[in-house]
Amino acid sequence: MVAFRMKRLVRVGAVALLLTPFLSLSALAEADDPLPSWNEGAAKAAILDLVSKTTTEGGRDYVVPADRTAVFDQDGTTWVSHPLYGQALFALDRLAELAPEHPEWKDTEPFKTVLDGDHEAMAKFTEKDWFEIVAVTHAGMTSTDFAKIVADWLPKSKNPIFKRPVTELVYQPMIEVMDYLRASGFRTYIVTGGGQDFVRVYSKPVYGIPTEQVIGSSIVTKYEMVDGKPVLMRDPKLFFNDDFDGKAVGINLFIGKRPQIAFGNSDGDKEMLQWTTAGDERAARFPGPARRCQEGSRLRSGRRLAGHQGRDVQPGTDG
Amino acid sequence: MVAFRMKRLVRVGAVALLLTPFLSLSALAEADDPLPSWNEGAAKAAILDLVSKTTTEGGRDYVVPADRTAVFDQDGTTWVSHPLYGQALFALDRLAELAPEHPEWKDTEPFKTVLDGDHEAMAKFTEKDWFEIVAVTHAGMTSTDFAKIVADWLPKSKNPIFKRPVTELVYQPMIEVMDYLRASGFRTYIVTGGGQDFVRVYSKPVYGIPTEQVIGSSIVTKYEMVDGKPVLMRDPKLFFNDDFDGKAVGINLFIGKRPQIAFGNSDGDKEMLQWTTAGDERAARFPGPARRCQEGSRLRSGRRLAGHQGRDVQPGTDG
Repeated sequence: MVAFRMKRLVRVGAVALLLTPFLSLSALAEADDPLPSWNEGAAKAAILDLVSKTTTEGGRDYVVPADRTAVFDQDGTTWVSHPLYGQALFALDRLAELAPEHPEWKDTEPFKTVLDGDHEAMAKFTEKDWFEIVAVTHAGMTSTDFAKIVADWLPKSKNPIFKRPVTELVYQPMIEVMDYLRASGFRTYIVTGGGQDFVRVYSKPVYGIPTEQVIGSSIVTKYEMVDGKPVLMRDPKLFFNDDFDGKAVGINLFIGKRPQIAFGNSDGDKEMLQWTTAGDERAARFPGPARRCQEGSRLRSGRRLAGHQGRDVQPGTDG
Repeated sequence: MVAFRMKRLVRVGAVALLLTPFLSLSALAEADDPLPSWNEGAAKAAILDLVSKTTTEGGRDYVVPADRTAVFDQDGTTWVSHPLYGQALFALDRLAELAPEHPEWKDTEPFKTVLDGDHEAMAKFTEKDWFEIVAVTHAGMTSTDFAKIVADWLPKSKNPIFKRPVTELVYQPMIEVMDYLRASGFRTYIVTGGGQDFVRVYSKPVYGIPTEQVIGSSIVTKYEMVDGKPVLMRDPKLFFNDDFDGKAVGINLFIGKRPQIAFGNSDGDKEMLQWTTAGDERAARFPGPARRCQEGSRLRSGRRLAGHQGRDVQPGTDG
């Protein structure tokens, strides 16, 4: 029995270790459950049922390991998105860092509003305003330099409510379900409206998801030779909007097979959830636990940085 | 010694089995060599050296398995591209199949030339001509229907020179090196100027490469509801041109990490080879064995169906 429990511990991997700083008996009992943070409800039962059905050889719903695919929205689903998306915090910090080189920003919108710290006015930013901020903070450098800038910022980042780096504000239930699905042979993907190259910087240490399994919005990159070496220059121009219908398109483009399970919390995830469940009775869809976590929050919601193209997310709609 | 040889047999997998219909002693000796079809030359030595260096723990050039990445061009590198690319053969067959529904094609270019079987005139097709053919053969249906059309065509396909299905005209040395790299912990990718959704139909049975590791050119797909079910409709509009500089951009977009080894045979692979070797002394690049196979061929070369955008591949430039 202990051996079995130990095996389960291994199965849920890092999550179980996180939950058991001291290997107490209660921790061992908890480790029998691959989803200890989940309420005993319909969502948890459906996840366990789907995994059981898709991994039982000979069953009608069996899926070979190579085809087991799970997709996760990020903002509001796997990590905190209030009071602003993590990537919006990055853009604003970066803007402040670059401001001394751009004295003209003090008198130019939308930069003035950001530098003045006028959060109320920022909540009313249009997509165009956000894209102007993206243009000066996410473009005009090589892909390698951008990754370095993000990597340097992450440990210094601070969510205004929780006062901790964004990479520490990840939902434990979602880490558990990612780990559980991987232990069951599923390949886990982030499918985010946020920036693909932004998320890729931390996806492995934070979610255990490698760069090639991060699907997101992207700007145009251009191949150029600089000092005899090729670089990819980031241009301030949207290439792919991985949101709403773009999430279904992106899944097909990057993966080329239909997932069996999808997790999302906002209207931008609707098509991804529809696409996942449309092809096969085995597929299941779940709202992320973030819905519950965020209920009651009346704080302003940021907007996704890349995309939306006129379809605004109203404050709180993803909470 | 026999045990060791057997282990090697397992290591090179299907290739070794293909080479040894009867498990003769000479076959066993051959199986000691993971690349038995390769000449003993600089290219083979460099591949063996790169694999040895990147997989030796503690070495300066060690790469963790999760980051081991190998990229392969397709046409002329992993399979035959003469007298026309496999996808061009598909487009022409498909055009003939659809012709009865389009009597107007008999008098409209470029369809007339194709239906007349005028290969000489076809060799002079512009990119615009080819894209008109792509538009009626590759678009206007759902992604699911397109995959089915390709899957139905493949066993009926016939290369005009070799009189065999295109999926049987794969270069044995490249199958060996793909298998060897995978056995050494590398993830193998096709990075093709050809159509991503076309190659994905057969990449797994032919190359052992799953859909999510096929990077190619693509047309726009649109999310639509048909009879209450979501579909992805294929539009006759180029979305991504995975050729020339697009191959480096595509590798970054789809994988997000730099490969250690790249294989290509034509000018459309130059940037992929540059990008692979630019970042790291460990990276190696090789022309595909196709160069030798095709030398002496004076047959017309097809052009890639998607892309090139004005940069023509002259007959024979990839041979």
